[in-house]
Order: sequence, then structure tokens, then C-alpha cells
Amino acid sequence: MAFLGAIGSQLSPLRESSSFLNTNTIIALTVFFALLCACIVVGHLLEENRWANESITALLLGLCAGGVVLLVSKFHSSHLLDFSEDLFFLYLLPPIIFNAGFQVKKKQFFKNFTTILLFGVFGTVISFCIISFGAFLLFKRIGISTLDVKDYLAVGAILSATDSVCTLQVLSQDETPFLYSIVFGEGVVNDATSIVLFYSVQSLDFSNINAGTALNLLGTFLYLFFTSTALGLSVGLISAYIIKTLYFGRHSTDREVALMMLMAYLSYMVAELLSLSGILTIFFCGIVMSHYTWHNVTESSRITTKHAFATISFIAETFIFLYVGMDAMDIEKWKISNASPGTSIIVSSTLLALVLLGRAAFVFPIANIKNCFQRTERTKIEFRKQFIIWWAGLMRGAVTIALCYNQFAESEESSTEESALMITSTIIVVLFSTVVFGSITKPLIEAMLLRHSKPSSSDAADTPSLEDLQLLFIENNDSSEQGNTQPVPRRSRLGLLISHPTTTVHYLWRKFDDRFMRPVFGGRGFVPFVPGSPSGVTDETC
Amino acid sequence: MAFLGAIGSQLSPLRESSSFLNTNTIIALTVFFALLCACIVVGHLLEENRWANESITALLLGLCAGGVVLLVSKFHSSHLLDFSEDLFFLYLLPPIIFNAGFQVKKKQFFKNFTTILLFGVFGTVISFCIISFGAFLLFKRIGISTLDVKDYLAVGAILSATDSVCTLQVLSQDETPFLYSIVFGEGVVNDATSIVLFYSVQSLDFSNINAGTALNLLGTFLYLFFTSTALGLSVGLISAYIIKTLYFGRHSTDREVALMMLMAYLSYMVAELLSLSGILTIFFCGIVMSHYTWHNVTESSRITTKHAFATISFIAETFIFLYVGMDAMDIEKWKISNASPGTSIIVSSTLLALVLLGRAAFVFPIANIKNCFQRTERTKIEFRKQFIIWWAGLMRGAVTIALCYNQFAESEESSTEESALMITSTIIVVLFSTVVFGSITKPLIEAMLLRHSKPSSSDAADTPSLEDLQLLFIENNDSSEQGNTQPVPRRSRLGLLISHPTTTVHYLWRKFDDRFMRPVFGGRGFVPFVPGSPSGVTDETC
Repeated sequence: MAFLGAIGSQLSPLRESSSFLNTNTIIALTVFFALLCACIVVGHLLEENRWANESITALLLGLCAGGVVLLVSKFHSSHLLDFSEDLFFLYLLPPIIFNAGFQVKKKQFFKNFTTILLFGVFGTVISFCIISFGAFLLFKRIGISTLDVKDYLAVGAILSATDSVCTLQVLSQDETPFLYSIVFGEGVVNDATSIVLFYSVQSLDFSNINAGTALNLLGTFLYLFFTSTALGLSVGLISAYIIKTLYFGRHSTDREVALMMLMAYLSYMVAELLSLSGILTIFFCGIVMSHYTWHNVTESSRITTKHAFATISFIAETFIFLYVGMDAMDIEKWKISNASPGTSIIVSSTLLALVLLGRAAFVFPIANIKNCFQRTERTKIEFRKQFIIWWAGLMRGAVTIALCYNQFAESEESSTEESALMITSTIIVVLFSTVVFGSITKPLIEAMLLRHSKPSSSDAADTPSLEDLQLLFIENNDSSEQGNTQPVPRRSRLGLLISHPTTTVHYLWRKFDDRFMRPVFGGRGFVPFVPGSPSGVTDETC
Repeated sequence: MAFLGAIGSQLSPLRESSSFLNTNTIIALTVFFALLCACIVVGHLLEENRWANESITALLLGLCAGGVVLLVSKFHSSHLLDFSEDLFFLYLLPPIIFNAGFQVKKKQFFKNFTTILLFGVFGTVISFCIISFGAFLLFKRIGISTLDVKDYLAVGAILSATDSVCTLQVLSQDETPFLYSIVFGEGVVNDATSIVLFYSVQSLDFSNINAGTALNLLGTFLYLFFTSTALGLSVGLISAYIIKTLYFGRHSTDREVALMMLMAYLSYMVAELLSLSGILTIFFCGIVMSHYTWHNVTESSRITTKHAFATISFIAETFIFLYVGMDAMDIEKWKISNASPGTSIIVSSTLLALVLLGRAAFVFPIANIKNCFQRTERTKIEFRKQFIIWWAGLMRGAVTIALCYNQFAESEESSTEESALMITSTIIVVLFSTVVFGSITKPLIEAMLLRHSKPSSSDAADTPSLEDLQLLFIENNDSSEQGNTQPVPRRSRLGLLISHPTTTVHYLWRKFDDRFMRPVFGGRGFVPFVPGSPSGVTDETC
């Protein structure tokens, strides 16, 4: 040992001077990777626990680690890595959103597409208006004076970005498909909407507001939405076409997997390069890839992509929560904010109240308006479901933190103290909502769903109607006799489109898909489905 | 279109000012990801081609892309990303080396362990001495004057780092297991050795050289080798133990995969943190993980890890070659070096000649010395195999470039022109050896192996001897009657150990593994082997 020690001590000084790598980077990476491993193990052990989940575990572990670093550095800093928006928006967010698109049950998602858009776009805008206006009215009374209109609008956009990871961990995609797809879909659309809103606010010229401004904003939004979606769909289709035509599986499974990963990421980058919404692009790219590309690759590639994408997304999510927890212990921000604990608590509770109110202000009205248009009791959104949808969007997470840093970390217009106060208050909102709301989520949802569950209507909107069954029957008939292209009489189709728009659109899409898309881009039709294959997801058509 | 264009033009200026992401980063990433996709597609199309392979494709595509960027920037710069040693040593090298350990056929590797160590360690040191000494003698005549002893020694270490990817793509692990394991194993050990040599040279104090210096170097090397290996083995065993004990598969496949990825990477980081050799650590961690951990996870995780690790390694390798190609077009370095094309060519050819000579100087002698100790004709390394081993290590790659930048990019002692000349000459050596030698490799090896192949002795060293078979028989007997632990008579064992050291060590290891290791750390013994399972590698025990 003495020998090793002697060599070690002789090595260390010279290695420090000549090592290729920055010691701080290595320490930071070591700590983060060790914490990530710890999160996974602790998360696994707490799997059965009613109150805990992975996000909370990561957040609390991050807080502890931040505390330890703070102690070790003698209260100088808890920073190991600077929070970098590049890291977040370039490397952590894309895999999470891509995986969301890749694993989503497409049938459910598109069936509830209008509802999802209503909640995700319209709802987020309402929440944005209420939080901005509320903060504008209330903050002056608390004594905050240097924030301007732009800052208040930014606060609205920042706090409108929800984080529904907690809820999605509790909801089951199989037991409550309707709720899951609404909460899940709203989460993705909400991320995109709030980021676009935030962009727009930052770029607005407030010295020159006129009637055209709102119209301009609307135009921008529609432009971004449609071009981003189109880009994502195109990249996904190109990947399917390339893999199908060149038949990569012949030579190498790894090339298939690599190409899928790289093209997905490329779609995000191209979108950002064209100033579109990368989130929407990569989400739709994921959907197309799971519908076409995934069926063109070998069985091993299918299993690999499914689990590898989920794993990468899982690591990115855990990393973010870990980081947010660690960042909360950053002593400097608290020092700069210079606010009394009282002020911090008042500001945070105000923001939290606005978040609760802003969400209630659109979930219940939109759901009830939607209910008015439903003819049958069965397809209406009951109150307990409305409540779960409301609850699911109360948590705030990484997008909020990232946007908040972007707005307030180097703000020139408002004073440094009040900017720091906004950052620390946002962190408190994120921590409180994730830890407190998050830990209640599981028992709450279980209670809500179990207490009221009736065997046949627990998730009514998903039960197929008589018409659905008829359509499926027609369609099965149709696909079993491929040569026989005798169309369903046009009048009956039009009638169906008016009376059951979603089902009819789905039926028409399947016909279009079978006849035009699949021959070119592949997909299930070309790979015989093996029942009981380990690839799991396969029993779903869209 | 006009509408979209108008909005687009209105958007771009404001987006540029408010976008979260640095536009240059996005452009660079977009270009790199697009090129990576192109490499995969072109590589796939050229799969059957005799002359091309993935490395050459990536290198040439990189050169073309660099040329285009150079033209677009009007000969100002071909840089999109700065070559960062952090990027290389932290993110690209670890997955490549880990995958090497994870996919290696362990039985072959350990069977030829002494030969691999001889070539990888002793051979690299010989090559280092010859290249350093040769450069020292010859460069003065060319007119290079400002380099000092340290620089020459560094050149020796830099150009001793081989890159055997090209050859490994041609050799088949199943058809020529002996050659494959030698070339492969030497490649990994060589990387570690040359990096350690380079470290040591940089840290030597040349004003105070005495007899102890060489001993000190040797001590350092042995210390690094054993501690790094031990660390890698420990982390691998810990991962196996955790996954076996906690039975992760029960809840989630993704957690298993994530934990394996993270712990592998953690081993590299911890090694770097302790100033050990991360490459050796992560390599042995990969070996242990494939021997124990891999058998403790679910079938899906096994397929996923196998392909995901291979894919990530493949992407990293392609990225490196792409980068090296692109970097070669960096006009600034060529301007600074200020050398006439003649000088550049002379320096590069000198270096290349030294590389050829330095490798010949150890491959043939070591192989022949080793042959003297072999009793049977069968186990000797024939000349054509020696030639292939020699050829396999002629290519220079990313490690060479990375070390070269480290030494010469910001050298204070030697003049800037000569430092730049060394960088450009090294790039020429890398390009020439990869493209020219690389493209000859496939036809050459095919010719060498086919022309002389005899059905039964094409890879003689792998044919099991009579004793091997006897041992296997004893062992099978032994494991089929687990309760019956009656030992083989001690005298016969000792005799075997002396006459057939490798086989006996392997036999003893298997007994130890079955009796002590597998009950604790899992491994094949605990998961029934399913013949024809899609996970492929399984039919190998070590």
C-alpha cells in the first residue's frame, strides 16, 4: 500500500498539470452519474410506495447533494455545472419529447386530437393571460416595482408550462386511455405553446402595439404549428422510405438504430435552424417513425429502439429533476435576491395561487363547453375526470426553470434583486408543486378513479360505439378482400362524417394509409405480425 | 407562400435575437448529424465494395464537407466545431472502448492474453522508442530545429497509437478468432499504453534524469494497469450484484438498461478522477458486465443493451472520422505552418516510414520469439498472420489526432510554425494511412487468408487440443453432477498447469466462477439458456 501511495502521490501533481480533462468537469460528471445511479436504485425501491415517485426522489436527492456541496464549499457555492439552456434545449428535451411521440398510442391521441388542442393551445393561452394579469395586479401591492409589462407577460408564459410527468407515472395507458391521452397530449402541446408564447413575448415591440399585434401573434403561432408539424412528418417519412428501400437489416441492425436516432435528432436541429418549434417537429417525427419506420426494421432493432429511446428519455428526465434540486441550493441567487423569507413566501404563494386559478379557469369551462356538444352521456367528461385533468397540470418543471433563467438571469431592464427574487420564487413554486402536489397525486388519483369506477363506464369515452364496430366490420371486410375495391356508398359515408367525425376520419385515414402510404413507406402491412413477440407495442393500429 | 414568407421574414430577426440557442451550435450540429446520416447510408451502399469501408467514407465525406464550408466561408475557416479534447475523451472514446469490452469474445481474449499484452504493451514501447529516436535523428536534417527532446518523445507516443477499426471490419470474429482477438486486444491495450506513455512523457522532468526515471516509469505503468483493471472489475461486479439482488426486471426494463449505461460511464469517470487509465477501467467493466450483469437482466434488456451499445459506439466512431476529415481542411493550420508542400510531404513521409518500421520492429521479432516457445507447429504464428498483424496496426486515427492537438496546439516551447507543421503532418499521416492503407486492407487480407487457407488449419491456434477436450469433458462431468465435488487428483492438475498453462487457468477459473462468483453475481448459470433466442451472443462461456 505504501508503495502504491507513494506512486500515487508522485503521480497526482503531474497528472493534474497534464491531464487532458478539466478536473472540475470530471468531478461534476462523476457526481451526476453517481446520483443518477442512486436515483434509479432508490426509485426502484420506492416503486410500491404510495407517496414517492421518480421525480420527487430525484428532486430530493438533488437537494441533498446540493446541500452537501454547499457545506463542502463552506457556503460559497452549490454549483457543479452551470445551468445551461444549451444543455437543456439541445440534449435533454429532444429525447424526452421524441420518446413521447414514439411511445404514444396514436389511435387514442388522434381520436382526442381536438380536445388535446383545445386544452393545450387555447387553455395555455388562457392560463398565460390570467397569470400575467394577476401578477401585474398583485405584485405592485407586495412592493415589486421594477418589473415591466414584458416581464409580467414572460412570467405568464413561464408559469404556463406544465410538467405532467408525475401524473403520467400514475395513470395507466391501458386502464384509462382517454385520461392518459388527454393529459399526455396536453403536456406536449402545452410545452410547445408556452415556449412559442415566451418567444413571442420576448420579441414583441411594446412601444408599438396596435390591433395587428394580436393577429400577428396568431399568424406566427399557426405558421409555426403547421410548418413544424409538416417538417416532423417529412423527416419521419424520409427515414421510413430510406430504411425500407435500402433494406438496412440485411447488413446491420446497428445502422438501422443509428439512422433512426440520428434522423430524429436531425429533425429537431433542422427545425431550430429554420426557427420553427423543434418540440413539435420531433414529436411528430416520433409518431411517424413509430407508425412506419419502426415496422420496417428487424425485430432486434424494434426491441432496441423501443427500450433505448425510453431509457434515454428516462435518464434525461431524471437528470433534469436532479439538476433542478441541486440548483435550488444555489446560495448566490438567494443572497442576491436579498428578500426576507416572508417576501419570498408571499411571492411564491401568489404565483402558486395564480397557477391553480389559471388552470381551473380553462379546464372546467372547456370541458363543460365540450360536453354540451356531446349527444350521449357516455362520451361526456365527468367532473372527476375534469378534476384529474386540472390536477395533472399543476406541477411545474424543467421548462419553467429554463425559461425563467432565460428571462431573468441576465435581465438588463429590471433590477438584479427583483430578477433574483423571481428566479428563487419560481424555484420554490417548482419544488413545492413537484414535491407536495406530486406526492399527493398517486393516492388522489387512485381514490378518484377507484371510488367512482363502474365496470363498464370507467373510461367511457373509449368504449367503442355501435358505429365504431360497424365501421371496423366494414373495414376488416375491405382489407380481407384487397382486390375488391367496391366503395361504401358515398351518401352513407358523408352522413357518417357529419354524425361521427372522429371515427370517420380515422376510417378514411386507414384506407388512405393502406392504399397509398404503406406501399411506399412500409409499416405494419409489410411485416407479418407475430403474436406474442417480445416487442409489445405491436398490437395497435392507427 | 407569400404569406408564410412574410411571416418568416418578420420572424427571423426577432428569433435570432431571442432564440435560446446559439445559431452556430445549431448549424454545426445540423451539419454533423446530416453528415452522419449520409455516412450511414453511403456506408451501407458500399458494404459490398472491396475498397471502401465506413471509416474511409466518413473521412472522405468529412473532407468534402470541410471543403464546402471552406468555400462558403471564402477560405476563412472550415471550422464548425472546435476540436475539443473534452468531447473526445469524455464522450466519444468511452462508449467505443466500453462496447469493445462488452462485445469481445472473452474466451479467445483471455486465451491469447499474454500475446496481446506482449504486442500491446511491449510492442507499443518499442514502436515509441523507434519513432522518437528516428524523428530525432531525421528531423534535424530536414531543417526542423525548435523541437526539443520532450517533443520528439511526444511524437513517438502520438504515432504509436494505432487504429485497427479498418482491419476489424474485415476480419471475422468467427472465421479467424485468433487473429481477430490479437488485433482487437492489441488495439485496446495499445490505446491505453500510448496514452499512458504520452502522459508520462509530458510529466517527466528532463532537467533531472537518472537511473530511477525508467524504473519510475515502469512502476507508474504497472500501478496504473492494475488499479485501473481492478476498478473496472469492481464496478462491473457491483452493477451485477445490484441488478441481481434488487431484481430490476420486475418493474422496468428501462431502469436495467439505464443502470448498465450509467455505471459503465461512471467507472470511466471515477478512473479519470483518481488519475487512473479510464480506458482500461471501462474496458474491463465492459467485460465483467457482459459476463455477469448481462445475464441478470430481462431478455429485452439483453437485446437492447447489446445493440444500443454497439450503435452508440458506431456513431461515436463515425463521428470521429467525420471530424478528422473535416478538420483536415482547416486552412488556418496550413497557413500558420508556413511550410512548402515539399517540406510537408517530406515530414509526413518520414513519419509514415517510421510508423511502418516501428511496427515491423516488434511484430515480427515478438511473434518469432513466441513461436520458439511453442512446441507444436499448430500453435505457431505463421508469417502471413504476422503480416496481417503488422498491417492491422498501420492505420492511425483519432487518438493520434487528439494527442497531437494536446501536445502541439498550444505549445509554448517550440515555435508556432513547427508546431503547426507537426499537426498538419500528423493529419496527413492519419488521412493517408486510413484512406490508402485502409482501402487496400480488405483485398489484401482476403487474398492472404484465402490463398493459404487449409480447411483444418486456417486458424490453427484456435483448434482445441486433445487436452482441451479432456478438460472440457472433466468439467462437463463435474457440472452435471453438482453435488459430487470429488476433486481431480492434485498431481495431475499441477502437471497440466505446467504443460498447458492457458487451458488449465481457464479450467480453474471456470470452477472458481461456478462455485464462488456466479452464486453472488449471477451470470449464465442462473438464467436458463434458450436456444435460438434472438440475443445471439449467448453461445459463449468464459
